[in-house]
Amino acid sequence: MVEDSSPLAPLAVVVLAAGKGTRMKSNLHKVLHPIAGRPMLEHLMASAAELSPQRQVVVAGHGLEQLEKALGDKVTFAVQEPQLGTGHAVQQAQGALDGFDGDILILYGDVPFVRTETMRAMIERLHAKDSPAVVVLGFEPEDPLQYGRVLAHDDGRIAMMVEYKDATEDQRACRLCNSGLMAVKSADLFDLLSRVGNDNAQGEYYLVDIVNVATLEGRTCAVITTDDPDEVGGINSRGELAEAEARWQARRRKAAMADGVTLTAPETVFFAWDTQLGRDVTIEPNVVFGPGVTIADDVTVRAFSHLEGATLESGVEIGPYARLRPGAVLKAGSKVGNFVEIKKAVLGEGAKANHLSYLGDAEIGAGANIGAGTITCNYDGYFKHKTVIGERAFIGSNSALVAPIQIGADAIVAAGSAVTRNVAPGELRLVRGEQLIKPGWADRFHDAMKKKKAEQKK
Amino acid sequence: MVEDSSPLAPLAVVVLAAGKGTRMKSNLHKVLHPIAGRPMLEHLMASAAELSPQRQVVVAGHGLEQLEKALGDKVTFAVQEPQLGTGHAVQQAQGALDGFDGDILILYGDVPFVRTETMRAMIERLHAKDSPAVVVLGFEPEDPLQYGRVLAHDDGRIAMMVEYKDATEDQRACRLCNSGLMAVKSADLFDLLSRVGNDNAQGEYYLVDIVNVATLEGRTCAVITTDDPDEVGGINSRGELAEAEARWQARRRKAAMADGVTLTAPETVFFAWDTQLGRDVTIEPNVVFGPGVTIADDVTVRAFSHLEGATLESGVEIGPYARLRPGAVLKAGSKVGNFVEIKKAVLGEGAKANHLSYLGDAEIGAGANIGAGTITCNYDGYFKHKTVIGERAFIGSNSALVAPIQIGADAIVAAGSAVTRNVAPGELRLVRGEQLIKPGWADRFHDAMKKKKAEQKK
Amino acid sequence: MVEDSSPLAPLAVVVLAAGKGTRMKSNLHKVLHPIAGRPMLEHLMASAAELSPQRQVVVAGHGLEQLEKALGDKVTFAVQEPQLGTGHAVQQAQGALDGFDGDILILYGDVPFVRTETMRAMIERLHAKDSPAVVVLGFEPEDPLQYGRVLAHDDGRIAMMVEYKDATEDQRACRLCNSGLMAVKSADLFDLLSRVGNDNAQGEYYLVDIVNVATLEGRTCAVITTDDPDEVGGINSRGELAEAEARWQARRRKAAMADGVTLTAPETVFFAWDTQLGRDVTIEPNVVFGPGVTIADDVTVRAFSHLEGATLESGVEIGPYARLRPGAVLKAGSKVGNFVEIKKAVLGEGAKANHLSYLGDAEIGAGANIGAGTITCNYDGYFKHKTVIGERAFIGSNSALVAPIQIGADAIVAAGSAVTRNVAPGELRLVRGEQLIKPGWADRFHDAMKKKKAEQKK
Repeated sequence: MVEDSSPLAPLAVVVLAAGKGTRMKSNLHKVLHPIAGRPMLEHLMASAAELSPQRQVVVAGHGLEQLEKALGDKVTFAVQEPQLGTGHAVQQAQGALDGFDGDILILYGDVPFVRTETMRAMIERLHAKDSPAVVVLGFEPEDPLQYGRVLAHDDGRIAMMVEYKDATEDQRACRLCNSGLMAVKSADLFDLLSRVGNDNAQGEYYLVDIVNVATLEGRTCAVITTDDPDEVGGINSRGELAEAEARWQARRRKAAMADGVTLTAPETVFFAWDTQLGRDVTIEPNVVFGPGVTIADDVTVRAFSHLEGATLESGVEIGPYARLRPGAVLKAGSKVGNFVEIKKAVLGEGAKANHLSYLGDAEIGAGANIGAGTITCNYDGYFKHKTVIGERAFIGSNSALVAPIQIGADAIVAAGSAVTRNVAPGELRLVRGEQLIKPGWADRFHDAMKKKKAEQKK
Repeated sequence: MVEDSSPLAPLAVVVLAAGKGTRMKSNLHKVLHPIAGRPMLEHLMASAAELSPQRQVVVAGHGLEQLEKALGDKVTFAVQEPQLGTGHAVQQAQGALDGFDGDILILYGDVPFVRTETMRAMIERLHAKDSPAVVVLGFEPEDPLQYGRVLAHDDGRIAMMVEYKDATEDQRACRLCNSGLMAVKSADLFDLLSRVGNDNAQGEYYLVDIVNVATLEGRTCAVITTDDPDEVGGINSRGELAEAEARWQARRRKAAMADGVTLTAPETVFFAWDTQLGRDVTIEPNVVFGPGVTIADDVTVRAFSHLEGATLESGVEIGPYARLRPGAVLKAGSKVGNFVEIKKAVLGEGAKANHLSYLGDAEIGAGANIGAGTITCNYDGYFKHKTVIGERAFIGSNSALVAPIQIGADAIVAAGSAVTRNVAPGELRLVRGEQLIKPGWADRFHDAMKKKKAEQKK
Repeated sequence: MVEDSSPLAPLAVVVLAAGKGTRMKSNLHKVLHPIAGRPMLEHLMASAAELSPQRQVVVAGHGLEQLEKALGDKVTFAVQEPQLGTGHAVQQAQGALDGFDGDILILYGDVPFVRTETMRAMIERLHAKDSPAVVVLGFEPEDPLQYGRVLAHDDGRIAMMVEYKDATEDQRACRLCNSGLMAVKSADLFDLLSRVGNDNAQGEYYLVDIVNVATLEGRTCAVITTDDPDEVGGINSRGELAEAEARWQARRRKAAMADGVTLTAPETVFFAWDTQLGRDVTIEPNVVFGPGVTIADDVTVRAFSHLEGATLESGVEIGPYARLRPGAVLKAGSKVGNFVEIKKAVLGEGAKANHLSYLGDAEIGAGANIGAGTITCNYDGYFKHKTVIGERAFIGSNSALVAPIQIGADAIVAAGSAVTRNVAPGELRLVRGEQLIKPGWADRFHDAMKKKKAEQKK
């Protein structure tokens, strides 16, 4: 968590998200593609939110409805239609910023991993003594070839911004590149933008040109540089999406191990953005976390497990092949074994469900033993119903518990029973037909079938 | 797909596959080891087949029967026994090429990923104005140390072929290496071969020597170069097999993402040679494809799923832990959940089988709901039988459907029922013993068992 | 296996394991963290054991009880409390070595992968003609920056040991580093140690100083160098633990492939320290081995399988999603399919358990067919009981076999039966209620529920 220091001035965040994202080849808006189980735009908005912005404006074009549905009323939307460049895009936010007086931070929906610290540094630079009109975020990639260059003095004052295609050999030798992110005071932004033209090959209005407009007028513009080029990497294709996911996962795994989590094979464990892990947690190879998982100390997650929306208290052991779905709560020392699915169910302290079971919409008491193949029949095709199992109850294998139903403490359900009525504490419930015995029947069946098989081969 | 342009002349393909493959340490013929679920030799034959060869000859030694069984009568086999070198191997194909007049392309069974374009370029070069006697395929590996060198003029005419061990320092500095692949006209091939000797350390007849024989006679020989050294990489050990598989998978994943497929963790998804994927398909980590899978648009394949011979229509969601086997057809919008196996079964539109089920030899109607733990009993130990489930039918959990059987539309099978006779539409079928209640029995059992445990500890 | 050549003199091994391991952030002693399923200290002790040491002393501090529990009476423990440096640590072993006359090898519990050959080379060097007082193991890491340097003559005689922080630029340019491992004769060790002081920044007694003490006295000290820097890499954090695991796995996979095992995706297969594999074994992606697995020739392990303590005879096929637990014995040609768990059970020749089953504490005859969803009810909440199934028996799907129970040869258990009494050979056992038919009931239920749903929406 980043400390929420008091801002220098009121803050507004403008996020550009009007690009078509053609290279994604997707009907889903580019900025809604998830990384670590969370839309990339939300990663960015969450980092910005730590600065407590007064306004958040998303400039959208194509796919506006998807964005509205995803972000709800947390943000104001501005529409850019047609799309005439990044400068034009920011201009569309003017209405949404009407009456706002303060700092404006310009971000990109497809550049989701800018750190809050970096955003804050940009804003702070805006309030430095030399009072720059624009603060640009620069970076130094390993291979800077295709990016526009920032030609700057040692103190960060910008001499010139130049597009790669217009740059001389000397200018290209400069490795400081323009990320596109900017901080500008509201008093300056739209004034500068109004003087940006579109006299270029694409006929577009480029945001970067506000730097050159300001510089020409003798205003100071400044660059600050992030030391992590990945922070400003844009995501334009599924390949880049996968790379961003991989970088996120690598960082998260490293952090988990540093905090006292054993990852036998870190590269095979996939976390979600909000996974919480205790100390002395062991995670075997091939484990996938969806959002909403909290794991306490001394928990073992065995191989091939899949967890979403689950809470695991200390000493719990799950897997291999455990599948925990939202609402699964595993109390201290409980155990979930292989091919077991838990959904919206509480497994009491020390309770066990070790094999081939489905437990949904259930409360299972401490010390209960759920036999192999147990199914809670929680759905009648129309409504969901609840199963309550008492402490130390023993559910025999291959039982079906037809909810709503209560099994009392210390009760026993015999193997193979489909139980439809409540079972009292200490009671045995047995639902089973007679053991019908047909001596020799199997032998006669084998003879007949072998004969039939032989005939078919003829 | 490569366009099947009309060939310059009739074509014959000769594939050398007589090597012992000792380093594989396998009873399976080296060229039959699979990559992406297909024997490596078949990858090669498929690429060659796009040039519509009139004849395909495989020169085999050890393991001929395995090759015959795998390739059937698609090819002619020639036997090389004993094995006296690559030149000798090609000579064994002479009988199988009797009466053939045209171009001959010489390939290697353990060099399976030569592209059709490269094969075509070799043949086209054979028909260039300078009319070479032999066209050699060269490549420039990063580390060329161990390979024989091709010393060539800028226009591709070969000055000399030299084995690494015989090469001078200057010759070794040349990075153009001989892949062994050649194109030769049938009129030249066996004539040149007949003049190749075995006066060398191994006493073998080397195919490469036809170049030197031809050059000595004043004939032109030419080299063309592939820009992808992996294309001509030979596979001689399980380690190299794994590396070839890894390269194949990396290419396939990249292509999938470029086509609009999300791979959360590309390195954990394994495709088969013929996997077909639609747009906006999402594949979570750890998914394995066997051959024969076709997936339409907007399908989600969740983690730990395994698919073979399955067809998934648009909007389908499967997994985690879904296992689709050959003949699984999932109609639009249907859903297969965790620990569910589908074999030779059609799941109708919007139908669901979410938990712990086995559905084999079945037709399941649109909108049907298959409860957790449902098993189609399709096998009686001798024959397979079919289960037909009507639209919107509801199969209660832990039910066994003993095939052959039909469950009508809108019918309900109660949880825990083993159903052996057809269920009419709209009917309820319930197969269950009485709920036998024994109050206090469990309490008495617990007391007795605790006493017994205590006694055992004494 | 390393040949157990006769030692030059009696050997004692001293393992230092008193460090707090703070960076692990673990309640488990650092040297007990497992790699390839075995505590790192045991890897080291096993390598040392091949030299047949007369005594093994572990110097412990923090976490002594855990070490005693893990190693039992295989070793003698010495306690270092407080911890005043490595020299001080070795001094604590003096009591445990009382009366021992021979060579002493000093190892570190968190440097677990020193090879037996390297240990032997150190001891042999101790007995060379120049009769060194101390033999140091040196290594040449890629980046030697932080390590102490060994300044040595070409013949391995040490001129000087110098800590990095005390080293001149010239000395730092030397890439030979001190691993900390040493061999010393018992006659010299404690004498030298007694003259080591603690006049340094930390106020600690450093083992390395015995080299300088000996050199000052005109004694020869010698270094031998391992060519594999990984051999002497210390493990101080979970990150380094994961890296050591990764290196171990990479070596094991490579060795498996060289021995004739196909690994479709080697990087996804995780072996245990004692996994035994036959020839022409195929392992698909994502397979995890716990300790105690032995696999014969021609076995196929399909994707997503998990094996511990299991024995697979030749021709067996398991998975995908097979889970074999300790005591699983799969006889030749038997088959275990998806979502099947086998624990302490023998599956006879050619027997099959293909789907969704739990077989525990069982003996299953040759050729038996275990239907989908079969559960052996081996546990009554207090005791485990055994299931014995005869040859060629057919267990119908969704059956529960309540142990102790015997099913005779060729017997048939009907689908859905909960069987509580023995079934004779050739007999049919059927446990099932009547097929209760309620025509139209489902239709009426659907109508009522739809109405209720509609009302709820109002």
